[in-house]
Amino acid sequence: MVRPKKIVVIGGVAGGMSAATRLRRLDEQADIVVLERSGYVSFANCGLPYHLSGTIEQRSSLMLQTPASLAARFALDVRVKSEAVEINRDAKTVIVRNLETKNEYVESYDFLILSPGAAPVMPGQPGAERAMSMRDIEDLDRAMAWLESKPTTALVLGGGFIGIEVAENLVKRGIQVTLLQRGNQLMKNLDPEMAVMLTTRMRAAGVDLRFNTTAREFTKKTVTLSTGEEISADVIFSAMGVRPEIGLAQLAGLRIGENGGIWVDAEQRTSDPSIFAVGDAAEKTDSISGEPRLATLAGLANRHGHSVANAIAQAPVVPATPALGTSIVTFEGLAAASVGWTETALRAESRNIRIVHAHPANHAAYYPGAETMRLKLIVDADTDKILGAQGVGGSGVDKRIDVIATAMFAGITASNLAQLELAYDPQHGSAKDPVNMLGYINRNIAEGFTRTIEWHQLELFRNEGWEILDVRTVGEHRFGAMPESINIPLDTLRENLEHLRGKKVVVHCQVGQRGHTATRILTQEGVEAVNLDGGYLTWKAGMASKGDQK
Amino acid sequence: MVRPKKIVVIGGVAGGMSAATRLRRLDEQADIVVLERSGYVSFANCGLPYHLSGTIEQRSSLMLQTPASLAARFALDVRVKSEAVEINRDAKTVIVRNLETKNEYVESYDFLILSPGAAPVMPGQPGAERAMSMRDIEDLDRAMAWLESKPTTALVLGGGFIGIEVAENLVKRGIQVTLLQRGNQLMKNLDPEMAVMLTTRMRAAGVDLRFNTTAREFTKKTVTLSTGEEISADVIFSAMGVRPEIGLAQLAGLRIGENGGIWVDAEQRTSDPSIFAVGDAAEKTDSISGEPRLATLAGLANRHGHSVANAIAQAPVVPATPALGTSIVTFEGLAAASVGWTETALRAESRNIRIVHAHPANHAAYYPGAETMRLKLIVDADTDKILGAQGVGGSGVDKRIDVIATAMFAGITASNLAQLELAYDPQHGSAKDPVNMLGYINRNIAEGFTRTIEWHQLELFRNEGWEILDVRTVGEHRFGAMPESINIPLDTLRENLEHLRGKKVVVHCQVGQRGHTATRILTQEGVEAVNLDGGYLTWKAGMASKGDQK
Repeated sequence: MVRPKKIVVIGGVAGGMSAATRLRRLDEQADIVVLERSGYVSFANCGLPYHLSGTIEQRSSLMLQTPASLAARFALDVRVKSEAVEINRDAKTVIVRNLETKNEYVESYDFLILSPGAAPVMPGQPGAERAMSMRDIEDLDRAMAWLESKPTTALVLGGGFIGIEVAENLVKRGIQVTLLQRGNQLMKNLDPEMAVMLTTRMRAAGVDLRFNTTAREFTKKTVTLSTGEEISADVIFSAMGVRPEIGLAQLAGLRIGENGGIWVDAEQRTSDPSIFAVGDAAEKTDSISGEPRLATLAGLANRHGHSVANAIAQAPVVPATPALGTSIVTFEGLAAASVGWTETALRAESRNIRIVHAHPANHAAYYPGAETMRLKLIVDADTDKILGAQGVGGSGVDKRIDVIATAMFAGITASNLAQLELAYDPQHGSAKDPVNMLGYINRNIAEGFTRTIEWHQLELFRNEGWEILDVRTVGEHRFGAMPESINIPLDTLRENLEHLRGKKVVVHCQVGQRGHTATRILTQEGVEAVNLDGGYLTWKAGMASKGDQK
Repeated sequence: MVRPKKIVVIGGVAGGMSAATRLRRLDEQADIVVLERSGYVSFANCGLPYHLSGTIEQRSSLMLQTPASLAARFALDVRVKSEAVEINRDAKTVIVRNLETKNEYVESYDFLILSPGAAPVMPGQPGAERAMSMRDIEDLDRAMAWLESKPTTALVLGGGFIGIEVAENLVKRGIQVTLLQRGNQLMKNLDPEMAVMLTTRMRAAGVDLRFNTTAREFTKKTVTLSTGEEISADVIFSAMGVRPEIGLAQLAGLRIGENGGIWVDAEQRTSDPSIFAVGDAAEKTDSISGEPRLATLAGLANRHGHSVANAIAQAPVVPATPALGTSIVTFEGLAAASVGWTETALRAESRNIRIVHAHPANHAAYYPGAETMRLKLIVDADTDKILGAQGVGGSGVDKRIDVIATAMFAGITASNLAQLELAYDPQHGSAKDPVNMLGYINRNIAEGFTRTIEWHQLELFRNEGWEILDVRTVGEHRFGAMPESINIPLDTLRENLEHLRGKKVVVHCQVGQRGHTATRILTQEGVEAVNLDGGYLTWKAGMASKGDQK
């Protein structure tokens, strides 16, 4: 009988645990040891912030498995409070420190799986030691203990996923929250005119949101901002992003990638063929650029863990798919989802792109409860390939981004989105689904039937002598309009053409649809016209986002 | 100057109106006449049933456009109560009857677009004249007038989309509803073990659902069933499906397809190159079989209308994509969605297929409000191509079916579903989304790591001497189990292997997941084992569906 394989897994959450359990299902004989530095394995990291407010009531519901349950079901040897401190690649051994007894011992392996995750970036300013992070159960326990002392003010550093979720849950507890963001918007995976919707909602909920602001110094109960202002902060949460935990890999001489994660091939193998790496510490390939990137997403960690198990058990391995980075964050019911690259990032690389904004309802507008969402599609203008999409709104935003993420994975074009057959009844969609609409609008631009400009290009056109034509109703125009815009409602446009002959006009309506019809009428009548993509609403959101960029 | 094109559109809803408005945006000069037999155009057909209960409160919210609004915005000549009674193809004219004045006149065309829709199949039994349908505003007005008389009982004929929606809204009004279904299940686009979930919900809501039952005779207040029973029925709704309105096309000698719809090519052109047809009256190509089919779906009608406008305006035409038939129906919050073919239909054609059932939660189970849904994936066992999918449940069912419909459109494989990067936060999904899970399970079967059988194959295996092994907990087993099943909980399976050596076992758990782990343990230990796909829940649903098939 062949000696069973011995596999050591470092890190017992997400990727590491997916690898271990899959491996057991593939190989009943293997000797599988899982080392976890914290006191817990297989906990729900993404659920941690929701226990702060009691939205997730029971701490125990965040514990998906225990060492005992994993031993019973998967015959895994799971050791918590066990830190791998050194790898000896020649001997194929790991030095393990028992963090309770402080004893160290040597564990041998045939294959080693690194799943150490990423460490929260913590502030280094004077007094910052009291800042808490939200990475594991120990962090949560520490935070819950602080909350026992009935703090009334909190400071959150960072306006990404964790910062927004922590802020939501602290607000729900009745705590006055200040959130500092070093940059000029929340969520760097969104463009400013999309991210501003989150800003508005968070401020409406009472979050004191400060852009272009950092902390200078902390005292026991206060913080001095980079603006010089001193504010109260009973508790401080740091959510300024994470850094891959690569110390152990570096010490072992494994190759580190250009983004500072552990370098792996498409089967998650590191530069040492007996060592694999998965999860937040391992580099991924970016789907749009083909370049290495980091991506701290649970779905990728699990999938790559699954893949490593196959590689070790010599089952067929599907090479890792380049990462699209599909993600979503929710603040009090307002979801902000994205996939692929932003317009900002693509413009910074001078890519030739096409943009489509739309403001569709989540389902048939005549059925009760319809809500408007904001969608954005970003397309390669040369190939019609989808490069990114963003959605902000209530119910149904996740669905549209998932459909587009699927389209991107499959490599169908932006115009193909018009052909998708999506499930429709009045509660769930429209006969032309929002995703279909994005496809139709894109195709109209791609085929030259309409020309659009973006909200941030309006000033440029105005400076070049273009006039602004508002084709909304008189009432809509009165309720809020751009400076110096002419108002000719679409339904009276044909009888008012003489006012426009010889002019160059940027047409706009509320969301872009009537503007498109008007642009078609004008163009066919010989008036040079472009349609403002996304209409007044997108322009207004864009201008609001600039307010924070000052 | 070239004489403007003259286009006559017959039918002013969905496909016809999409064609007319798109045509105007492409051609400002064209002369566009829309003839509509009823008194209304561009109304929301799919919303009609919801006005019965007042869920959609205002009748006016069902009117999306009027002839006047279409004239103002799109310069269309829309004529309601105008029936096209004959086409003279040689002269390129249509005889139009004004249904109010009874006058007839001749209208010429360069291009004719037929969008006459489909007529409800009405019962022919004695006394059936009082049965109502739910096709247009006139039908709705008639129904609302009946409801004024405070009926207490209603009979609905047919258990498809319209029958279920009408039943929901009558129940909501407090009316006692009996629904007759000629066949042995609701919704023929679902397999029986999926459709039964709707049956259960409708019965729980008080609908008296009778399968394999038809109406024999109607009196003014009652109906005699095929069983001989006489029941009260103050109002009768017919929802037994529709037939394409092909009378006019037939009279004109246009080619009729093998499914009884108007034959069209991939640009929606009929056998006469000056005449196009779209919507419910036109045949489609089926995506799975490549054969002609009918499909009465608003999304297809709109898309094909758009395409016809391009063809007439000599803009680029995207040939019609074969129809997947993606659809959804909802009864009191329980959504039932599907795409592609059913297992039943594929087995009838002896196709080599693979089936996956899963019972995932719509989002992270630890986040409040998680609901279990039932999903089914049907795969070509030779090519791994996705042939169909079904989902029944609350929130999130539509999303998963839309993602799979997108995957089917793009032609990615069932195993690829595991690689999709879908948006995840605890409110919107799981790190392994339900769609990913379907992909993983399919791949395990495809690669031979696990062998599964379906609920309807269990008796066959039992008869061939296989034993049933329930690996759920003792408590779950006691709460409900299959006859003659052995219970060895998964977590104690390894220490009980001696009881199973030499046996052939069908393993099952609640939903299939623990069964998979158990099957892997047993197979590696030399015990011949197959896993029951979808576990106890799918088997139980399947058996319940058979109860109605007696």
